[in-house]
Amino acid sequence: MSQGEHISSGFDEDLAELKANFLKMGGMVESHVAGAVTALVDNDGHLGEKIRDADKQVDQLELLIDEEATHIIARRQPTARDLRLVIAVIKMVADLERIGDEAKKIAKLAISLAEEGKAPRGYVEVQHIANHVRGMLRDALDAFARLDPEPAISIMKEDKRVDEEYKTAARSLLTFMMEDTRNISKCMSVMWILRALERVGDHACNIAENVIYMVEGEDVRHKPTKWAEQVVGS
Amino acid sequence: MSQGEHISSGFDEDLAELKANFLKMGGMVESHVAGAVTALVDNDGHLGEKIRDADKQVDQLELLIDEEATHIIARRQPTARDLRLVIAVIKMVADLERIGDEAKKIAKLAISLAEEGKAPRGYVEVQHIANHVRGMLRDALDAFARLDPEPAISIMKEDKRVDEEYKTAARSLLTFMMEDTRNISKCMSVMWILRALERVGDHACNIAENVIYMVEGEDVRHKPTKWAEQVVGS
Repeated sequence: MSQGEHISSGFDEDLAELKANFLKMGGMVESHVAGAVTALVDNDGHLGEKIRDADKQVDQLELLIDEEATHIIARRQPTARDLRLVIAVIKMVADLERIGDEAKKIAKLAISLAEEGKAPRGYVEVQHIANHVRGMLRDALDAFARLDPEPAISIMKEDKRVDEEYKTAARSLLTFMMEDTRNISKCMSVMWILRALERVGDHACNIAENVIYMVEGEDVRHKPTKWAEQVVGS
Repeated sequence: MSQGEHISSGFDEDLAELKANFLKMGGMVESHVAGAVTALVDNDGHLGEKIRDADKQVDQLELLIDEEATHIIARRQPTARDLRLVIAVIKMVADLERIGDEAKKIAKLAISLAEEGKAPRGYVEVQHIANHVRGMLRDALDAFARLDPEPAISIMKEDKRVDEEYKTAARSLLTFMMEDTRNISKCMSVMWILRALERVGDHACNIAENVIYMVEGEDVRHKPTKWAEQVVGS
């Protein structure tokens, strides 16, 4: 085997490991969002504590992936699509870390609601939006795994729907708070949970945008490109 | 002039431009946070609209800086501290963009509160926390400009104080909402504004962490390093 082939094969392995770790982290935060919402709905403080504490593993994976990405750039000097992949991972890993933070936030609120007693409203909406944004996240990770920018468009459409669902749920909670002041404190916790889930949707959307950039070399953020037009025109 | 010097000089110019644009974007989002809070406190819907619309410039700068950073990595193949600087900029620019988003969010709430009539409480707390997080952001940008990791430690300490201030203000608003249900809707807007400002503090803290990484080559996120110990031990 020539030296060139050797380097190239090591490069491919590095990239494959980077991608595998990124997907591992993605799967981890998705399961944390699911677990945190289950802890809430089942009034399961113990599960909430498990999810809260598990966020440390997410943070460690973030550091590892960042290190790997920097190492690849420094040692392998990737260009074109490979470089875009590494840079996209550096950006997307921050989104995954924040999804992990949102899951942790939900878990902590689930713990206190398990102690105080459930909130009187909003759990159905929480479950619905949680399923929605988890689906978006899975699709975004799948788009990344298959280097397929097409699903990214539908993720952006979904994000608009999640925003609407969030607004509707928040309005309904607000009305309920006005009806009975005894509901305010617990309903506020549910409000923060809804907000955290809406943010998870935003981060899934960021990941989708980065997959497009990675594959197409086109930065679709903030621009009326063909991608954005497809979304707006839907 | 030799070819080597020419390339090196171009490299330095590229890095200098990258840094200048980053600082320009930082100054821009700091002024947007200030403007959005002024719009709120002065009940100035027109200023609110100006700030809301000005976020487009922030987004454009983000795209430009990302492009410059990618270009430098691809063409100049920086190593060691130079590479860390470019990677840190790629990460920090996402924080600045999100600070811009928070300012836009505050501006939009300021516009609706200017229409509905001011909220009965919370403006003093908003101003206080806004000044606090703007100071943190300025210090973080300054640490970046001077490549000085020392101020980063105090920024992390400040972030803990902002979190406490935020919690106190949120608790007090919650109590006020419970006292009179007619306050709920407007007080919720102030609650979202406080939350947005608290997030600005978090982003300033992220920038500070990246400055440390950039200068020291040490990733202080999520780790009990000497930096974190200095913070915890304070």
